[in-house]
Amino acid sequence: MTISDDALRAAQAVNAERLWGRLMRMAEFGARPDGGVDRPCLSAEDQNARAELIGWAEARGYQVSVDRAANLFIRRAGRRDGPAILTGSHMDSQPKGGRFDGIGGVLGGLEALDAISEAGLETDRAIEVVAFTNEEGGRFSPGCTGSMSWSGARDPASFDDLEDENGARYADALNETLSKAPELATRPLGDAPAAYVELHIEQGPVLEEKALQIAAVTGIQGVRWYDVEITGDTAHAGTTPLALRRDAVQAMHRAIAALNALMADPDDVVRFTVGRIEVEPNSPNAVADKARFTIDFRHPDRAVLEQRGNAVEEAVRKAAEPCRAEVRPSLFSDPTHFPEPIVAIIEQAARDLDFSVMRLPSGAFHDALFASQICPTAMIFVPSRNGLSHHPDEYTAPEHMAAGTQVLAATLVDLANGNATV
Amino acid sequence: MTISDDALRAAQAVNAERLWGRLMRMAEFGARPDGGVDRPCLSAEDQNARAELIGWAEARGYQVSVDRAANLFIRRAGRRDGPAILTGSHMDSQPKGGRFDGIGGVLGGLEALDAISEAGLETDRAIEVVAFTNEEGGRFSPGCTGSMSWSGARDPASFDDLEDENGARYADALNETLSKAPELATRPLGDAPAAYVELHIEQGPVLEEKALQIAAVTGIQGVRWYDVEITGDTAHAGTTPLALRRDAVQAMHRAIAALNALMADPDDVVRFTVGRIEVEPNSPNAVADKARFTIDFRHPDRAVLEQRGNAVEEAVRKAAEPCRAEVRPSLFSDPTHFPEPIVAIIEQAARDLDFSVMRLPSGAFHDALFASQICPTAMIFVPSRNGLSHHPDEYTAPEHMAAGTQVLAATLVDLANGNATV
Repeated sequence: MTISDDALRAAQAVNAERLWGRLMRMAEFGARPDGGVDRPCLSAEDQNARAELIGWAEARGYQVSVDRAANLFIRRAGRRDGPAILTGSHMDSQPKGGRFDGIGGVLGGLEALDAISEAGLETDRAIEVVAFTNEEGGRFSPGCTGSMSWSGARDPASFDDLEDENGARYADALNETLSKAPELATRPLGDAPAAYVELHIEQGPVLEEKALQIAAVTGIQGVRWYDVEITGDTAHAGTTPLALRRDAVQAMHRAIAALNALMADPDDVVRFTVGRIEVEPNSPNAVADKARFTIDFRHPDRAVLEQRGNAVEEAVRKAAEPCRAEVRPSLFSDPTHFPEPIVAIIEQAARDLDFSVMRLPSGAFHDALFASQICPTAMIFVPSRNGLSHHPDEYTAPEHMAAGTQVLAATLVDLANGNATV
Repeated sequence: MTISDDALRAAQAVNAERLWGRLMRMAEFGARPDGGVDRPCLSAEDQNARAELIGWAEARGYQVSVDRAANLFIRRAGRRDGPAILTGSHMDSQPKGGRFDGIGGVLGGLEALDAISEAGLETDRAIEVVAFTNEEGGRFSPGCTGSMSWSGARDPASFDDLEDENGARYADALNETLSKAPELATRPLGDAPAAYVELHIEQGPVLEEKALQIAAVTGIQGVRWYDVEITGDTAHAGTTPLALRRDAVQAMHRAIAALNALMADPDDVVRFTVGRIEVEPNSPNAVADKARFTIDFRHPDRAVLEQRGNAVEEAVRKAAEPCRAEVRPSLFSDPTHFPEPIVAIIEQAARDLDFSVMRLPSGAFHDALFASQICPTAMIFVPSRNGLSHHPDEYTAPEHMAAGTQVLAATLVDLANGNATV
């Protein structure tokens, strides 16, 4: 056993029923008829969910504050001043989202604070829970505007003119949301914590597949996105011999075959997805003159991202001939590696609490990506049923949510008390 | 020379400039800014085009009548009563259509009547020009409702409740169009002519490719359509290992590969087209759980249509595994073979008029498909530049339109006078 007695007591004080009750209560804000959640950032549903969270926090006497990106902070004071240990995630959802993505990390964080309180513990450093604004990018794209503003990754003003599909401005929605809770203390952006630990559902099938309870997340894999547009000639499907066609759909077919070959990986670590396809004129009896598709390519190793990613354009162009192919890179995000010490702390805490645990890189983005740029950061994953997320059927069992929260509470206590150093 | 002197005189009287002028005038009804035509059937543009045509016909003293399917008939009387020789086509266009498809056959027919008149000829049988309603199916689907109603292929009332994308009913649009020309004589449906000859643009590249002027069309190839729906599981593109996915886009990719193999034809006679693709959720970072696509498969030989068409479902299902594939046949139209005598008449008329000519099956549907069910039928094709049709850039040169009309005029005269028998 390497975790402290205090950490163990905090973990044992986690109240699984209270946590589950709060998750189900929050799922009412933006509830969908199919059991999922549609809670766009800075919407009325988001504002109501924030009010509920603030109520829970203030009832326990935690100090609540907000920064100009509308990131919400709940602070449980420590014995001394100085940077806090931060946990949290986000409260917004995808339009067809579920009840756990993001909000699980916020409510797990709040439950950890309550458990620490109920265990009668004091900590050296303060522990804070953050709810970042707009992680999903479902209403205002890109996502992670809250954590990017907070971490300094981007100038917050650069997001002001983002518009949602109804033409509402991001800056206006932000101000409206801030005006709903004028009593809150304000805090500056860029106030770096001593460490950041984010609890999140895995959003993939690995933990379930291996029947494990916890993942200590080693980093966030790198991502390259491309938009491909293939141009051929439209023609009548009945009249034009195949040899005389420049069929954009068939060119896309050849390009995907070439990409499948390029991305082949016996170890199944490469993530390669064609998720979006659009065809014009998209008529059953017309040969297509346009086919557009997206490439999402991810890998934890930068060298692989570079080698294979740099080969995408030529592979597509060559395969698409005699059609013309344009390949536009739209995103290149380097792999992030969380520091070994903080990953090890989480892994050890899980073992000491008798949970089965593995190390796993995150396939998805998280606010932790931006936190990791300003402080030691890691994440805790809990299993997603059928690997589903961004889906109304997204589900993580109460015992898995509680287990992740226990690991989180123990980790936060040891970090806050300097028993574990990063 | 086997065509009659009268037929030759009629052909020589064709006025290429008048024909071109009328084509360009008609292109104003529903003109698109890109030079194409958008003239939905039974629309205001169609009604105005009909009024223009009626004006031209009545100015020459031809008798104009209409049936309850709003098919418009222009009759140049013959020496005796009885079934006429019919020519014509349709006046409606695709939404992004051109200036020649359909209307070329109607105005070519009218020009043939005028040429016969100006050559001072009488014919035994009457010669009629028909403008069939809704060949394209662009506004009310299916197409060919006019020629199907006329030929008895379908009960005209069965089309009454078709709706366009704005919810307008076919029967209402039909009645509104009929009410615009209340003075017209009415005629019954199903009045079979002695023969039907349709002039049309090729809508394919073969004549241009071979630098020929005329095709004597041997029939209309058979068509089988299928709607395929593949169902997999959606998943996060970043988190889900490829081996654990049931990716509907990749299953579609394998299905198209299997279909390409099934449809391979060294003679390049098979027409196989995937023209329409839809993916859900169609998001760059989500593995697709639905992929829908259409199959358009055509061949002049029924045995080939049966053998390969019957193999489509199993090929798709097998290739799509572990995803589920539903394959729904949505159309099966037998190949139509025009009678040899009438094809031979057209071919000979072209030769006698010193035009280069070949025989060619039609890859596309035409009103002639339904005419052929009630009378000897054939078609005359003229070249399409770049094989384009259903496209604003659709183009057939004035000399090609005139050549086709000369062959048509000669053929009509000899058919009407019994110099050529079918």
